Amino acid sequence: MLLSALLTSVGINLGLCFLFFTLYSILRKQPANVTVYGPRLVKDGKSQQSNDFNLERLLPTAGWVKRALEPTNDEILSNLGLDALVFVRVFVFSIRVFSFASVVGVFILLPVNYMGTEFEEFFDLPKKSMDNFSISNVNDGSNKLWIHFCAIYIFTAVVCSLLYHEHQYISSKRIAHLYSSKPQPHEFTVLVSGVPLVSGNSISETVENFFREYHSSTYLSHIVVHRTDKLKVLMNDAEKLYKKLTRVKSGSISRQKSRRDGFLGMFGRNVDVVDHYQKKLDKLEDDMRLKQSLLAGEEVPAAFVSFRTRHGAAIAANIQQGIDPTQWLTETAPEPSDVHWPFFTASFVRRWISNVVVLVAFVTLLILYIVPVVVVQGLANLHQLETWFPFLTGLLNMKIVSTVITGYLPSLIFQLFLLTVPPIMLLLSSMQGFNSHSQIEKSACIKLLIFTVWNSFFTNVLSGSALYRVNVFLEPKTIPRVLAAAVPAQASFFVSYVVTSGWTGLSSEVLRLVPLLWNLINKLFGKEDDKEFEVPSTPFCQEIPKILFFGLLGITYFFLSPLILPFLLGYYCLGYVIYRNQLLNVYAAKYETGGKFWPIVHSYTIFSLVLMHIIAVGLFGLKEVPWASYLTIPLPILTVLFSIYCQRRFLPNFRSYPTECLVNKDKEDERDQNMSEFYSKLVVAYRDPALSASQNSRDISP
Amino acid sequence: MLLSALLTSVGINLGLCFLFFTLYSILRKQPANVTVYGPRLVKDGKSQQSNDFNLERLLPTAGWVKRALEPTNDEILSNLGLDALVFVRVFVFSIRVFSFASVVGVFILLPVNYMGTEFEEFFDLPKKSMDNFSISNVNDGSNKLWIHFCAIYIFTAVVCSLLYHEHQYISSKRIAHLYSSKPQPHEFTVLVSGVPLVSGNSISETVENFFREYHSSTYLSHIVVHRTDKLKVLMNDAEKLYKKLTRVKSGSISRQKSRRDGFLGMFGRNVDVVDHYQKKLDKLEDDMRLKQSLLAGEEVPAAFVSFRTRHGAAIAANIQQGIDPTQWLTETAPEPSDVHWPFFTASFVRRWISNVVVLVAFVTLLILYIVPVVVVQGLANLHQLETWFPFLTGLLNMKIVSTVITGYLPSLIFQLFLLTVPPIMLLLSSMQGFNSHSQIEKSACIKLLIFTVWNSFFTNVLSGSALYRVNVFLEPKTIPRVLAAAVPAQASFFVSYVVTSGWTGLSSEVLRLVPLLWNLINKLFGKEDDKEFEVPSTPFCQEIPKILFFGLLGITYFFLSPLILPFLLGYYCLGYVIYRNQLLNVYAAKYETGGKFWPIVHSYTIFSLVLMHIIAVGLFGLKEVPWASYLTIPLPILTVLFSIYCQRRFLPNFRSYPTECLVNKDKEDERDQNMSEFYSKLVVAYRDPALSASQNSRDISP
Repeated sequence: MLLSALLTSVGINLGLCFLFFTLYSILRKQPANVTVYGPRLVKDGKSQQSNDFNLERLLPTAGWVKRALEPTNDEILSNLGLDALVFVRVFVFSIRVFSFASVVGVFILLPVNYMGTEFEEFFDLPKKSMDNFSISNVNDGSNKLWIHFCAIYIFTAVVCSLLYHEHQYISSKRIAHLYSSKPQPHEFTVLVSGVPLVSGNSISETVENFFREYHSSTYLSHIVVHRTDKLKVLMNDAEKLYKKLTRVKSGSISRQKSRRDGFLGMFGRNVDVVDHYQKKLDKLEDDMRLKQSLLAGEEVPAAFVSFRTRHGAAIAANIQQGIDPTQWLTETAPEPSDVHWPFFTASFVRRWISNVVVLVAFVTLLILYIVPVVVVQGLANLHQLETWFPFLTGLLNMKIVSTVITGYLPSLIFQLFLLTVPPIMLLLSSMQGFNSHSQIEKSACIKLLIFTVWNSFFTNVLSGSALYRVNVFLEPKTIPRVLAAAVPAQASFFVSYVVTSGWTGLSSEVLRLVPLLWNLINKLFGKEDDKEFEVPSTPFCQEIPKILFFGLLGITYFFLSPLILPFLLGYYCLGYVIYRNQLLNVYAAKYETGGKFWPIVHSYTIFSLVLMHIIAVGLFGLKEVPWASYLTIPLPILTVLFSIYCQRRFLPNFRSYPTECLVNKDKEDERDQNMSEFYSKLVVAYRDPALSASQNSRDISP
Repeated sequence: MLLSALLTSVGINLGLCFLFFTLYSILRKQPANVTVYGPRLVKDGKSQQSNDFNLERLLPTAGWVKRALEPTNDEILSNLGLDALVFVRVFVFSIRVFSFASVVGVFILLPVNYMGTEFEEFFDLPKKSMDNFSISNVNDGSNKLWIHFCAIYIFTAVVCSLLYHEHQYISSKRIAHLYSSKPQPHEFTVLVSGVPLVSGNSISETVENFFREYHSSTYLSHIVVHRTDKLKVLMNDAEKLYKKLTRVKSGSISRQKSRRDGFLGMFGRNVDVVDHYQKKLDKLEDDMRLKQSLLAGEEVPAAFVSFRTRHGAAIAANIQQGIDPTQWLTETAPEPSDVHWPFFTASFVRRWISNVVVLVAFVTLLILYIVPVVVVQGLANLHQLETWFPFLTGLLNMKIVSTVITGYLPSLIFQLFLLTVPPIMLLLSSMQGFNSHSQIEKSACIKLLIFTVWNSFFTNVLSGSALYRVNVFLEPKTIPRVLAAAVPAQASFFVSYVVTSGWTGLSSEVLRLVPLLWNLINKLFGKEDDKEFEVPSTPFCQEIPKILFFGLLGITYFFLSPLILPFLLGYYCLGYVIYRNQLLNVYAAKYETGGKFWPIVHSYTIFSLVLMHIIAVGLFGLKEVPWASYLTIPLPILTVLFSIYCQRRFLPNFRSYPTECLVNKDKEDERDQNMSEFYSKLVVAYRDPALSASQNSRDISP
């Protein structure tokens, strides 16, 4: 790619970013938009905006940036939870990594690359291409490549040490979070599945007998899960009907609506409609009550078992309970709001099979998606376009058009295309038999990461047919060479991707374009929002793969094409400010995973480093510095050893809490006088929402 | 290999076996050999042989075979322990597998192979070669290969179902063993390492405080480990000296010795010598006492912590204790006699590093050992021998010599060479920081297995340079073809190996040649045995890799060269009788691992099956039946899935006992009146033998 095309792309996106930011800093001050830009504040009652008009409301200001940066880590931890803190720390970590990388890359590697003459000799290019700044420009066999070699070693050491400290920090915060938090139902509860069927006993009795027998001193209560899928369908129908009814009823009072009704001369019918809906609702509610009473018998062999102490729950969760390892399976219960109810019916074997099926589906998807990606890439190729649509030739030959198309269009289409993937991954993960939303999200996040790396990185990097690509991975020995030949050539595409998808994506994120437009349309047409006012849930699952993928790009291109580094640094700084702001004002966590996302970040960073090392091995080979190539081989081995060490050192704390903490916290509770109140709440905390009496009927019936 | 050469080898070995068995059945009846053939019986006081001479003593009889087969599985379990049962079941499982395989192989596959004409067309051989019976003789593209295809599918299904049932059986026996056994110290004890140093407190105090605080209801007592390596050196010296002294003292009484002393005229000196040794021993004992008192302060940050209940110990062992996962590491304690004392000083990091170092050493060894193996194989090559030693040409051209050399020598040398490996593997494993002998043995067993497969199977199978061999594994796509081309060619070598190493090895095993000769020499020269009478420990670690390697050969050659199957079946039947007999009469288990060897057998069988599938994929490709090749690909995937399922289904029971068993057993103990006596034993069960007062001094001092 020519430097001019790159600069065009950067220019367009910088402009868009600026525009979005300006719009945001004006729009957020309009009282009408408070539910768009500060739903969290509204819910917490912290929104302090007045409806009075003043000039300041129309001027863009940057005060929000300052406010977003104000809260300390401990404030974030106590107000937003550990997941939010981990999310913010990912940015801090990335900023640190790429600050160092940018300094080394721009001030040392870039000049070295630029001084090379490889490209001028071979291609005799009139204009400056981006390749002049990449390692490809360094002459073959040149001793300058040892500078790159040293840079790789030092960079790896810096990343690993930063990773170690971050791991230590988050690990300690996880413990601190437990110590500072109030008693939570999920800390005292264990989810038991695979309850064996004992003839003559109901499942509830079997569970009661088992835990009274084997956990006599700590057992508190249990709630057996019921099969409620049919009930849920009825409930959804009732809810819709209820909403319609409320609207019709309020319609007969609301001034605007009654005028419209009056205009159409339908005063009389209004009462009929209410009657009709009310009858329908009554019938539905009767059905529901009948179903509810029937369901009391329809038990599923799974139960939430609560204990008097956290340590008691941990004992039940960590030690195999029954003689048959497929029965009495225990795991730490998810938070009550985090429970994913549909999958409790599944047996051990069915869950296991559905896992295998999902794996196969995922791999198939991974392979099938190569086709559209290649087609999209073909579209971005100018000559290809000319062949397909000959009438465009004139247009495409205009310099500005071609610059825009090569610099901007491919990554835009590519990015739009990737938007379709997260819902599919979520769907796949939800079929795997997880019992909590957070597990589903985590699994979807991992799938997305694999998908992104495979289908964005490798498909982009490796040209040729899909079959050829698979072949490469069946011959591991050739991987370094193939990657080393292919990766540097794609640098410009990925720089442009960082700018388009990263910068513009982030600033459209801060603008919250979809809710804003939705709000605006509702306001314009005077239509009241159907949906209840809701604080959106933190979208960790969709965001983390994106953020980590940029990290992968930065690390792999660190020594290949340092030009990407300042752009990435910019991306992370931007993201840091913006996310601190969608976290403080907009989003609220529906449930807390306790920082369990962090180990994914760790593994992924290690993967990126090792990928960089493999490319380095291949590249030094291609560049005819074989000794540098051989001497790089210990580096991935050392990195993996470091990773295994870190996992042994820190990972146990992310799986469960240690006895020391649990017993200390239990002892603290013993002195607490509110515990009996908490226990009474705990007993009903895991009741299926479908089985509690329907709220609507009570509210609406006279 | 020619059929005649093979038959020669079988003949020689069958003769040897017969000779050994005849010798055994005569020698075992001689009263003088009772410590060789029945040390276990002697120890248990069950030996009922009289010294009276009768003719029956000199005639070979087969009654011992019947006696060896008499005990039921439950009797083996209660008398010899679970490990012995598992060991016996490995043979039962193998006999079942190879009975089925032999029937299919000999009656279906062998005739199909023999009817092929591939070899006759190509080589026009005058004599019948072994290759006529192998799959290589089936014509390329022949539809008969679909018979092999079906056989592979059916065989895999049979092996998997047998494996499943065996897993289930052993898993249930493991639980049954716990229920039927008396309270054992290791069930109540946890080994704690990485005790943090608290200033002002001794390690003993820190441990006491921690467990009193966090396991107040179940904690019983603890014993801190001390640094006793120097003391052990002193103890060894003292023991040697003590033995010398007893010999000298008894020498002045014993008739034979005093006669010899008299012959040399050294009556006078005898008293001096006793005095001299006694003084030396006194000095050593003073040193030891001093060291013992000094050592009371030299604590190692590790301790054996005992609990009042099994469940209490399981809780401490299964849940992370301290906040820092590298401190307060807990694991189930080994049996007191199983403790390996030297490694308690190692910290988390040091243990981790030593693991890495051992891994590197192991891989290096694996690669370096290729060289001698190739040289040995070269020696077995007739032409090679003629080139190296031209003067042997005449001798080598004699038919009988050449037959013996090609049929017998290679596998014999090969087998002798492999004898050097187990001690090296044990040494490596003992450096890994394990705290028990059984863990060391298990780890050495796994290393040996990997070593055997790599250096016996792959090095034998893949010709060419070592570098080429490594290359094959860097290009996984070519593996099936390379293996399919190379494996069938080695069939005759491995048949001969089964006969030489298997049959002859087993029958020399039953003869216990080395102890027998040792005994004989001692008897002849009237020398009394220096060593105390000891029941040898069960050599599971050395035997299991050998037995499993034969299984691998049988499974991989199942459809390639069914001629091997009856020989293998013979091996396993022989082994079954003989091992039931070295277990009942000779060996005694020093410690019980609770059947933890079984999962190794499972994984290894799965590995063998997958290897067979890979070879099948390659072979059907080479034989130009591409569809059979493609249709075999799902088989290894299904097999691995089956293995994962089995591991989830059964493996947890091999790691630790479930709550249900532990609590039931604890409740049983509560009703037991001997428990207070057991607790008092438990408190001192894990005292380091080096720190207890020296026994010798008391025995010998007047």
